[in-house]
Amino acid sequence: MLETRLRETIGRIAPLDSLVQDEARARQRALTKPPGSLGRLEALSIQIAGITGQALPRIEHKVIVTMAGDHGVAAEGVSAFPQEVTAQMVSNFLRGGAAVNVLARHTGARVVVVDMGVAADLAPHANLVDHKIAPGTASITRGPAMTREQAIQALTAGIAIVEDELAKGLDIVGTGDMGIGNTTPSATIAVALTGRPVAEIVGRGTGVDDAGLARKIQAVATAMAVNRPDPRDPLDVLSKVGGFEIGGLAGVMLGAAAHRRPVVLDGFICTAAAMIAVGLAPQVAPYLIAAHCSQERGHRIMLDWLQLEPFLDLDMRLGEGTGAALGIFLAEAACKILAEMATFGEAGVTDRESA
Amino acid sequence: MLETRLRETIGRIAPLDSLVQDEARARQRALTKPPGSLGRLEALSIQIAGITGQALPRIEHKVIVTMAGDHGVAAEGVSAFPQEVTAQMVSNFLRGGAAVNVLARHTGARVVVVDMGVAADLAPHANLVDHKIAPGTASITRGPAMTREQAIQALTAGIAIVEDELAKGLDIVGTGDMGIGNTTPSATIAVALTGRPVAEIVGRGTGVDDAGLARKIQAVATAMAVNRPDPRDPLDVLSKVGGFEIGGLAGVMLGAAAHRRPVVLDGFICTAAAMIAVGLAPQVAPYLIAAHCSQERGHRIMLDWLQLEPFLDLDMRLGEGTGAALGIFLAEAACKILAEMATFGEAGVTDRESA
Repeated sequence: MLETRLRETIGRIAPLDSLVQDEARARQRALTKPPGSLGRLEALSIQIAGITGQALPRIEHKVIVTMAGDHGVAAEGVSAFPQEVTAQMVSNFLRGGAAVNVLARHTGARVVVVDMGVAADLAPHANLVDHKIAPGTASITRGPAMTREQAIQALTAGIAIVEDELAKGLDIVGTGDMGIGNTTPSATIAVALTGRPVAEIVGRGTGVDDAGLARKIQAVATAMAVNRPDPRDPLDVLSKVGGFEIGGLAGVMLGAAAHRRPVVLDGFICTAAAMIAVGLAPQVAPYLIAAHCSQERGHRIMLDWLQLEPFLDLDMRLGEGTGAALGIFLAEAACKILAEMATFGEAGVTDRESA
Repeated sequence: MLETRLRETIGRIAPLDSLVQDEARARQRALTKPPGSLGRLEALSIQIAGITGQALPRIEHKVIVTMAGDHGVAAEGVSAFPQEVTAQMVSNFLRGGAAVNVLARHTGARVVVVDMGVAADLAPHANLVDHKIAPGTASITRGPAMTREQAIQALTAGIAIVEDELAKGLDIVGTGDMGIGNTTPSATIAVALTGRPVAEIVGRGTGVDDAGLARKIQAVATAMAVNRPDPRDPLDVLSKVGGFEIGGLAGVMLGAAAHRRPVVLDGFICTAAAMIAVGLAPQVAPYLIAAHCSQERGHRIMLDWLQLEPFLDLDMRLGEGTGAALGIFLAEAACKILAEMATFGEAGVTDRESA
């Protein structure tokens, strides 16, 4: 059943609309500025035109989906913070006091907080979406994080979130994560899919010391050896070495692309989720916008694997969707340039060709 | 008289408030996120706290000052656009159809358009500030762009603009420029002050072809040889190889710093103006925020000379204040993080030290 929904969603993801992209490209050339002088904002506007199928895409309803989940591997000293912080931060999100809330308000986005698998009973809350699959994954150093069925359940939960939010208005979606220990499964996904050495990918996460970093490197190496995830089978990778929020975020990407909505990726964890999504459906890649390059080691390698060029490089490494919030601002800026600037003709400005 | 005003303004520029910076730094550590995890946004918030003298700086009134001026050197084929475009773009700014208008609206800033020396009679307009010093500079390849008195006049006009806008509310100021041909004097200022070879600094501006680039390089070399600007005397550099809008923008920086307001620099031309401002008053440097690295060759060298690290690198090269508008958004984001995020104590989140 769920597998059918996943397959149908993937089947709906179409290539970007190249005719609309041509229209947007032509309009960029007619606007009162030297051609190309707004650099990557121009390309971004053309990408979003192609995604949405609208030559003058309007971004009005902005959503950041922040998914939380816990990780069995957190018990192995791979994070600077204790596992209880995942649930505490969910409460902080719901009260509006976290960094993602501040930056989402600044960019005019609403934050959708999702419990994908927090290892605590969270009190029901009007703004908390409950898709809890289990109270945390099993430790990836001892066996698979979850079953294959749970991986599919996580992906379809992400698709369902997008479809629920579409009904309320959703023109662009940013992704965010919360889960103590989740840079470890994310790094393992990256190692599994890129084949790069563990030490090139694993970083300090929220700030582990040298001993913690050594434990993380060991945990990733052990998880690879114990689970032997098959890089040709992204569902195998997700279920063996992933996490519930990572699967959910990959599902958000698939769902958004199926409905022609641009997806703004946050940092390291969201990029691991994007690798799963692109592994399952390569045609999702052009729907993705990399907001920023995280300070977390390995993120650049993962972005390169996805052939994504991040827009910001501010040494951020918080997650939650904080980078995505900034990226949404840039995406909206790009679209407004396309829609609101005067053309040479309209403004009576001499174009270079006529000079 | 004007020289007195300039000297007084410079005399008022104080070092950043280090006690307030310590307060802001301590608050950043208490907020519900791993310390340092918001990267350069954290440092930016601390900088702005020190500039404003407020531990929780609020950015409400945002202004982009876009100054226009013409350049005698434009007659020598150094731009892809004819000189008439300067005046046409001023009209475009006043009608709200230019890129800076779109991005300023997006970031919630008002645009103040100033005629510092456009080579046309501009119709009076409620939103056009007239500080025209002359209808364009003389060509820097034949002698000085302006007199020393005119250079002082340009600087004090910038100071006056800031003081006028302060009365309307100004918490942060972005700088912007418009002036066909103005990458040539800007590059010459950079060559004069850094001592670097002309070919390392001069770029294609709004998009000249190879022949145009060769003419620009020749023009800068000739301007240096003809004028021999004295790098120890920034007023000499400004008057001999600068421009009216460049002097005005340097004045905006001095005036803003004197009133403890942060200045967000746009691209190549504004950075040349910043070099003049910092040459006149080294203590202005910590008041400056480099929004982005322009695609224009030499910009990185100039930013390095100023010891400024740009926040964005989007291959933009438009000017007008477009990059500054994006930078203002980041500055405001940084301040909101400081003011609006919950602390570990407030949110009941376990800090790493207590873990």
